[in-house]
Amino acid sequence: MTHQIAIIGASGYTGAELIRLIAEHPNMQIAALAANSKAGQAMADVFPHLRHLDLPDLVTWEQIDFDAIDLCFCALPHKTSQEVISQLPGSVKVVDLSADFRLRDPAEYEKWYGNKHAALAQQDEAVYGLTEFYREDIRGARLVAGTGCNAATGQYALRPLISAGVIGLDDIILDMKCAVSGAGRSLKENLLHAELSEGYNAYAVGGTHRHLGEFDQEFSALAGREVKVQFTPHLIPANRGILATVYVTGEATSVHTTLADAYAAEPFVHVLPFGQTPSTHHVRGSNHVHIGVTGDRIAGRAIVVVALDNLTKGSSGQALQNANLMLGEDETLGLTMAPLFP
Amino acid sequence: MTHQIAIIGASGYTGAELIRLIAEHPNMQIAALAANSKAGQAMADVFPHLRHLDLPDLVTWEQIDFDAIDLCFCALPHKTSQEVISQLPGSVKVVDLSADFRLRDPAEYEKWYGNKHAALAQQDEAVYGLTEFYREDIRGARLVAGTGCNAATGQYALRPLISAGVIGLDDIILDMKCAVSGAGRSLKENLLHAELSEGYNAYAVGGTHRHLGEFDQEFSALAGREVKVQFTPHLIPANRGILATVYVTGEATSVHTTLADAYAAEPFVHVLPFGQTPSTHHVRGSNHVHIGVTGDRIAGRAIVVVALDNLTKGSSGQALQNANLMLGEDETLGLTMAPLFP
Amino acid sequence: MTHQIAIIGASGYTGAELIRLIAEHPNMQIAALAANSKAGQAMADVFPHLRHLDLPDLVTWEQIDFDAIDLCFCALPHKTSQEVISQLPGSVKVVDLSADFRLRDPAEYEKWYGNKHAALAQQDEAVYGLTEFYREDIRGARLVAGTGCNAATGQYALRPLISAGVIGLDDIILDMKCAVSGAGRSLKENLLHAELSEGYNAYAVGGTHRHLGEFDQEFSALAGREVKVQFTPHLIPANRGILATVYVTGEATSVHTTLADAYAAEPFVHVLPFGQTPSTHHVRGSNHVHIGVTGDRIAGRAIVVVALDNLTKGSSGQALQNANLMLGEDETLGLTMAPLFP
Amino acid sequence: MTHQIAIIGASGYTGAELIRLIAEHPNMQIAALAANSKAGQAMADVFPHLRHLDLPDLVTWEQIDFDAIDLCFCALPHKTSQEVISQLPGSVKVVDLSADFRLRDPAEYEKWYGNKHAALAQQDEAVYGLTEFYREDIRGARLVAGTGCNAATGQYALRPLISAGVIGLDDIILDMKCAVSGAGRSLKENLLHAELSEGYNAYAVGGTHRHLGEFDQEFSALAGREVKVQFTPHLIPANRGILATVYVTGEATSVHTTLADAYAAEPFVHVLPFGQTPSTHHVRGSNHVHIGVTGDRIAGRAIVVVALDNLTKGSSGQALQNANLMLGEDETLGLTMAPLFP
Repeated sequence: MTHQIAIIGASGYTGAELIRLIAEHPNMQIAALAANSKAGQAMADVFPHLRHLDLPDLVTWEQIDFDAIDLCFCALPHKTSQEVISQLPGSVKVVDLSADFRLRDPAEYEKWYGNKHAALAQQDEAVYGLTEFYREDIRGARLVAGTGCNAATGQYALRPLISAGVIGLDDIILDMKCAVSGAGRSLKENLLHAELSEGYNAYAVGGTHRHLGEFDQEFSALAGREVKVQFTPHLIPANRGILATVYVTGEATSVHTTLADAYAAEPFVHVLPFGQTPSTHHVRGSNHVHIGVTGDRIAGRAIVVVALDNLTKGSSGQALQNANLMLGEDETLGLTMAPLFP
Repeated sequence: MTHQIAIIGASGYTGAELIRLIAEHPNMQIAALAANSKAGQAMADVFPHLRHLDLPDLVTWEQIDFDAIDLCFCALPHKTSQEVISQLPGSVKVVDLSADFRLRDPAEYEKWYGNKHAALAQQDEAVYGLTEFYREDIRGARLVAGTGCNAATGQYALRPLISAGVIGLDDIILDMKCAVSGAGRSLKENLLHAELSEGYNAYAVGGTHRHLGEFDQEFSALAGREVKVQFTPHLIPANRGILATVYVTGEATSVHTTLADAYAAEPFVHVLPFGQTPSTHHVRGSNHVHIGVTGDRIAGRAIVVVALDNLTKGSSGQALQNANLMLGEDETLGLTMAPLFP
Repeated sequence: MTHQIAIIGASGYTGAELIRLIAEHPNMQIAALAANSKAGQAMADVFPHLRHLDLPDLVTWEQIDFDAIDLCFCALPHKTSQEVISQLPGSVKVVDLSADFRLRDPAEYEKWYGNKHAALAQQDEAVYGLTEFYREDIRGARLVAGTGCNAATGQYALRPLISAGVIGLDDIILDMKCAVSGAGRSLKENLLHAELSEGYNAYAVGGTHRHLGEFDQEFSALAGREVKVQFTPHLIPANRGILATVYVTGEATSVHTTLADAYAAEPFVHVLPFGQTPSTHHVRGSNHVHIGVTGDRIAGRAIVVVALDNLTKGSSGQALQNANLMLGEDETLGLTMAPLFP
Repeated sequence: MTHQIAIIGASGYTGAELIRLIAEHPNMQIAALAANSKAGQAMADVFPHLRHLDLPDLVTWEQIDFDAIDLCFCALPHKTSQEVISQLPGSVKVVDLSADFRLRDPAEYEKWYGNKHAALAQQDEAVYGLTEFYREDIRGARLVAGTGCNAATGQYALRPLISAGVIGLDDIILDMKCAVSGAGRSLKENLLHAELSEGYNAYAVGGTHRHLGEFDQEFSALAGREVKVQFTPHLIPANRGILATVYVTGEATSVHTTLADAYAAEPFVHVLPFGQTPSTHHVRGSNHVHIGVTGDRIAGRAIVVVALDNLTKGSSGQALQNANLMLGEDETLGLTMAPLFP
């Protein structure tokens, strides 16, 4: 059975990445592509790398016949996403890639994103989309909220450790190195090749990055108490990838064992032998996560390093994995491609 | 039916690329991986991006049981390749990715590569592997010689034009821009990131690049007279891609029509609308070729620009496409992935 | 004696490059910096890499007291530049970096740039700024027109050859590889890191690039007949540099000797030993030009490769060299820094 | 008065950087260049970007007439450096760029570097070369030991804070992002463009990086007790730059004030306004250090970010600054060039 798929927001990077993945999916067909600002254009003009595919032209999302759609991916900016999703028929399953349905508490949403939430009913039914930890809920969900890409990366390091109680909760530091596609296809001076290549910098330093809202919500729920982490993202001159270097207190071999056990059966999350460290080079373009654990010369400290591709496992790959679950398919369909190296 | 596959030379970039592709092939299984200098190692240590695959450890090629192998890819350096292939049992189909069987005339081989050919019998049976132009021969071949990556790129621009007689034969210039993976995983100073990134240069200027041997052989055969082109490669700070800017004399719209007609039915070769130009960005990691044709303000001149990925369509992708033909499979199997962008 | 300098258009890359160079000049002082869209801002906010310098804040150009200025650099977009320069007092020497005063024939200007020239008096007095060939005129000029960066690169290869009559005039091809800073600090999708890094493409193919106007004017004047070259620029993932691969007919050793003789006394133009080829790596950040000449396996053909830094020798370095001449200084002052490598 | 300078180890990146800087120095002349493995070669062949300079050919260090030399830079690998320096005449001032004389305790040296120290007399007289903190000692020294590039970067963040007692000493974390030239001109697989560009990773995780020896020595001396920091370096796809993100406990505004006061009179160290963060883009090719301080949402924590160019301020620029002091010159001579951006 072929599922009919729509993508709203098909002119951005996560939209293009969804198309790349779905094009190889045996049981999905792209029935509609929407991008209101570019409606009427052919995808070959918006993304020439998709030229070889037989894709529908871009339309406005209002032009989509949702009766013919089984599942809709929403790859819109936050705020716009909630406005659109609240107007979609309830019969359509939705995977949202924006930040709009990640935070369960509307006050937290408003605190981090600045606007009142305008789709509280949908927010209420949304399931948080970190597949490995919400798999059963996702299977039965109508609306799944894709996680932030940094938020996913950090949680892969920390969730099992918090659950198992093997690390201290008051001194967790996440130092993240993020490739530029995480900023989307936006025309900003600091994203120009001439401004970015050959240099790097921290940004949103000091606890101001919005993905902290997800860390707070998820880690506090797991711990049964408030957990506040430090998180500093850095912009690195590369197109894809997130590397999280996570500093924790705890016994390093326990940390390693806990993570190795937690992910032993996962198809996409791989814990390296103790003492090895991963690289974003080795996950690029794939849905895989590599995790390494090392001790420190200072006893009682461990360093967990996580690498994933922000556009794939951090965003569109995760979205497709969730869609597979929602549609009753094997969750790895369309996601088994190896990384591209070099 | 699943074909049992061996790869000799699995520790280089074209070997790794073959594994990436075959891992997604529905009817092939990797039965043996050889790399004599790294025999005994696990692939996860040699290429960590393949860690998630269940692959055999590296062995020496002599350790392979060829009775259990249907087809063998040889991704060795030239000279070594002919020595190995001449010792393989005749029952095994072989796709060679080296330069050893591309030139039909042993004297030409010796002229360009400096050593006497040591496997003349195999050279005699080898079929030149430019799929779109040798398809029927490849189907029946036991040994196929993969083309040079630059040689493939230039031939996509020029073969139909020479065959159709729509361009002059005495003033063809190929100015090529080549990404660094074409040089392989070799430890040379000029391939270091610190020496290559942020700058670029010509090399093998003036008609000394070995792929000229292929151009001479193929273009002269097509034209029925000697054709000598000018070819200047440039090393560009990127990992994958070849862009050929080909300067010809001839009527630009005829050039465009001839190419569009020649490739109309090809699954992987796409001729853009007249006046558009391709980019290596839009073919990276894929088996697709993009071709653009433009006229010049000087009447009677045309510019053909060809973009492809040197490791995929220029090498391992071509090899797999040929292997599919040799094994009676649909030639696109394992090769339909979209390019990775950004 | 310290010359008082103003820069109009100080918020772009060529403006910043002028400041970088003048900061090391023993006899120049930056008295005013203008950028109308950013007037009121400190330079440390616009270009943090200049933070350590004691620079005046940005003003509008109308706020500059030109009585206190000896020489003014104009680093504005074309069309704006002519409007501003036509209003400057005649007592101020001007080096213009825009395209507005490069073409002597107003009809040619209108043909290539699309607008009628609005400062014909200034155009009439302007001297073309290719230092090595207009040195004496520049010394006495009030207004010097900086050349196009590609135009400069191509002329370094070809002017001496055309003057000496050692090459054919009807089959000259310039294939140029250009770094992205040549496009300025402009917010365009194809200049984003995510769109540019790791790939490359031709643009303005077929004789449509505006710098052809300069080639036509200069080469035809030198030859005493119409000379039309083919010129294809390519956008390369690097920040600085132009590499021109120039295909000519002629005897290669004559070509080499002619160039070596022409530049023997030049402080910034270096002709490499015959058969060697230059790299943009080796001129980055400097005012030097490296030129290599090679023969081809086809007799009677030669390849000239030129490398320079588009922001320095191709633009702001050239401008400063000309300003030195106009102010009676040694032309190398402020320009002797070595390239930055790696 | 012109000082006669020798450089031993002139074929590596720090050697080339010394030449770039000294070429602009008004009171220094390069009298000899040694590189034993490339003795006899011209510098233009080893580093073509220095082609325009009138430099002596490479010799072996034993061939240098040290009677004619005032000061010698040693840019050799550690272990080799101590062997050479112990044989130099005591009349020659020496700035060593290797690790051989950084650690005062021979046991610490052996612990981190694995070999017994073979030049204990010289080790005893060596002054640690972090200019801003050892200025007076350096002025009178015969032998100055250049610091590790990472060691310098971390110390700029932490020394004033430890001295002032405004941060906790038991939970300092330095997460460093390092460009590839820090690894030198060495032929290693992971330094190839194809392996490094577009990805990044941690290395020497868990307290194994040798520069920890310098941190231990210097911080413990300042604090009057043992101080052990956590330090994790990361390899970033860029050629120049180190960015240190330093996590400390303490009051953020005190941290900022302490650093701003400490460096107020320094010519090369710039503390940004509170809350701003630096970038390696803005120091590339220069001797400047940019430092930013930010608070965190968690009270009592601060983040200090330091950016410098590893080859300049982190190595050869520091060496020249120290040489200026040793020779009685203004310490900024030859070091005032602005960063190269873009």
